[in-house]
Amino acid sequence: MSVLKETVAKIERSDQEAKERAQKKVDGLLKPVGSLGVLERLAVQLAGMDEALLKRDLKKSVLVFAGDHGIFEEGITSAPQEVTALMTQFIANQKSGVGVIAQTFGADVFVYDVGVKNEINNEQLIPRKIRKGTNNFLKEHAMTREEAIQSIEIGIKEANHAIDKGYEVLATGEMGIGNTTPSSAIFCALGGFEAEEMTGIGANLSDEKMQHKRDVIDEAIKKWNPDRKDGIDVLAKVGGFEIGAMAGVMLAGAANKKPVLVDGFISSAAAAIAKTIEPKVGDYLICSHLSAEKGARKALEFLGFEPYFKMDMRLGEGSGAALAFPIVDAAVNMYLNMGSYADAGISVV
Amino acid sequence: MSVLKETVAKIERSDQEAKERAQKKVDGLLKPVGSLGVLERLAVQLAGMDEALLKRDLKKSVLVFAGDHGIFEEGITSAPQEVTALMTQFIANQKSGVGVIAQTFGADVFVYDVGVKNEINNEQLIPRKIRKGTNNFLKEHAMTREEAIQSIEIGIKEANHAIDKGYEVLATGEMGIGNTTPSSAIFCALGGFEAEEMTGIGANLSDEKMQHKRDVIDEAIKKWNPDRKDGIDVLAKVGGFEIGAMAGVMLAGAANKKPVLVDGFISSAAAAIAKTIEPKVGDYLICSHLSAEKGARKALEFLGFEPYFKMDMRLGEGSGAALAFPIVDAAVNMYLNMGSYADAGISVV
Repeated sequence: MSVLKETVAKIERSDQEAKERAQKKVDGLLKPVGSLGVLERLAVQLAGMDEALLKRDLKKSVLVFAGDHGIFEEGITSAPQEVTALMTQFIANQKSGVGVIAQTFGADVFVYDVGVKNEINNEQLIPRKIRKGTNNFLKEHAMTREEAIQSIEIGIKEANHAIDKGYEVLATGEMGIGNTTPSSAIFCALGGFEAEEMTGIGANLSDEKMQHKRDVIDEAIKKWNPDRKDGIDVLAKVGGFEIGAMAGVMLAGAANKKPVLVDGFISSAAAAIAKTIEPKVGDYLICSHLSAEKGARKALEFLGFEPYFKMDMRLGEGSGAALAFPIVDAAVNMYLNMGSYADAGISVV
Repeated sequence: MSVLKETVAKIERSDQEAKERAQKKVDGLLKPVGSLGVLERLAVQLAGMDEALLKRDLKKSVLVFAGDHGIFEEGITSAPQEVTALMTQFIANQKSGVGVIAQTFGADVFVYDVGVKNEINNEQLIPRKIRKGTNNFLKEHAMTREEAIQSIEIGIKEANHAIDKGYEVLATGEMGIGNTTPSSAIFCALGGFEAEEMTGIGANLSDEKMQHKRDVIDEAIKKWNPDRKDGIDVLAKVGGFEIGAMAGVMLAGAANKKPVLVDGFISSAAAAIAKTIEPKVGDYLICSHLSAEKGARKALEFLGFEPYFKMDMRLGEGSGAALAFPIVDAAVNMYLNMGSYADAGISVV
């Protein structure tokens, strides 16, 4: 059995009874029922994954995947393509946004080259290159079906490896100039949206290029007609290597009953692929922030996610997901150390 | 000169030149300009207060003030009045929501009795009782003008004391059964809102009591006609001792060029009082979360605040403000340790 099939076969719904036990405990804490909002729901969600996750000092990491995009040549970005390699270096050297945010919260960042066009020599970068960028998906499929599966399986293997090393909370991040375009295309393909609704400014795109970006997406969806019930087909026709790898991390997290923090718009596109492959994966995904990228709100609604915060962030790299690590810590500490009505000798009717 | 007058006289606008220097540095970090959103604005805001705040491991504390409310007797709460004393005990013992959240982030919580009806014997509780609860503001002014000033000055002195002990970031919290009612009344008085717009369920109030809560507020505002240009008049006529004390913390923070994190709806009412007394205080206030309490969004719009997150929290105590401590840490670490285009030898046009 392939790594992907094996992983998907292992994914179970989270444990409803454990969630009910946790909910009962949370409802008995010293506060009006429900008044700690998302912290309560997060603690219950973690209990449903694995009650052993409710402990202090969970070991956290961000897995960041970098890749280039053939669609770049259509002129849908504000930055030159070399920036993918350049920023991948900085991320690997822990000098980028995700690096400093993760470091603030004691989390480690691992960076993988799954398809950067330029060669990068950096010992901190983990080489997993499929090839030097996807194809221009306006002219041909972004990648073959085999490559799509390969990208997902890279994510699965790296997540499994991280979990073997003791990481208990994973977050997804990415770098790839042009990758809001395949992300928008994925949502259009899976959710039946028009590009108009799902296309934003990425890294500060001009108005003129925006219209072209929308046209490119609509045309590609019309031309390839991806099967919205088949996440691998969508990934192959209009996706990206780093998006497939992040979907793989989510599937592996779910298979191992570990939470995966989803970052912004591009990570959400990976979540949409992962949920199309196996809907049960949703039980293990934690939405972090509502990105400032235009399609982000509709994307989260489509996924059924509720964002924890909205800080006008649209950097990617996993920076928003990393900022949710302390929220996980607070939810766990609430669960473990907050006093209860029972401890206080008060009976609640 | 009184403590209040002296404090207000010390408050200066934050330093525009320091903010411009910080903005320039932030714009030169390795990311699309503006893409770290609120983290960028927060770093710039801190620089404007005092560039020395941009350092790691800022010492943080939450100052929690507890008081009772004469308006309780109108039947505008879901909980019995004894819960104020009970929860104040738990907060002082660090077993409540704010205690566990603050502890997650290495922050200390100090708890003050400024007007709890019942006597509390607890060495962890700092006694600063003005008297045993305010008056029923439907029948008479909640407190005298002198008491309003006294409540603010308690907050000022305690904040000054915390700052003297080395705390560099303060957060405000409160406990007081019934205190969403004076908070709504404060916004109605200062902002000209109808009670309908500003009145929520507090700690899970029933529908029947909600209408009565609104009527009580509208009637009191009509009866006392508080002067919306005079924060002390509004506080005296329809406020609360803990609300005055939190306003004092905000004024003292501003006078000492230290940031004060504002919690939810009740802390926001204190911010409205503080800004009415001295509008410059706003430069030093950091809005944390959008509370789930009904009037919260309009309250923040009135204050010109942008909330950092929305987690359906409505516990009070300073729990939401404490959850913003890691965001401050992330903003500072971004400012200090993120790589820049200049370091990377890239010139940005």
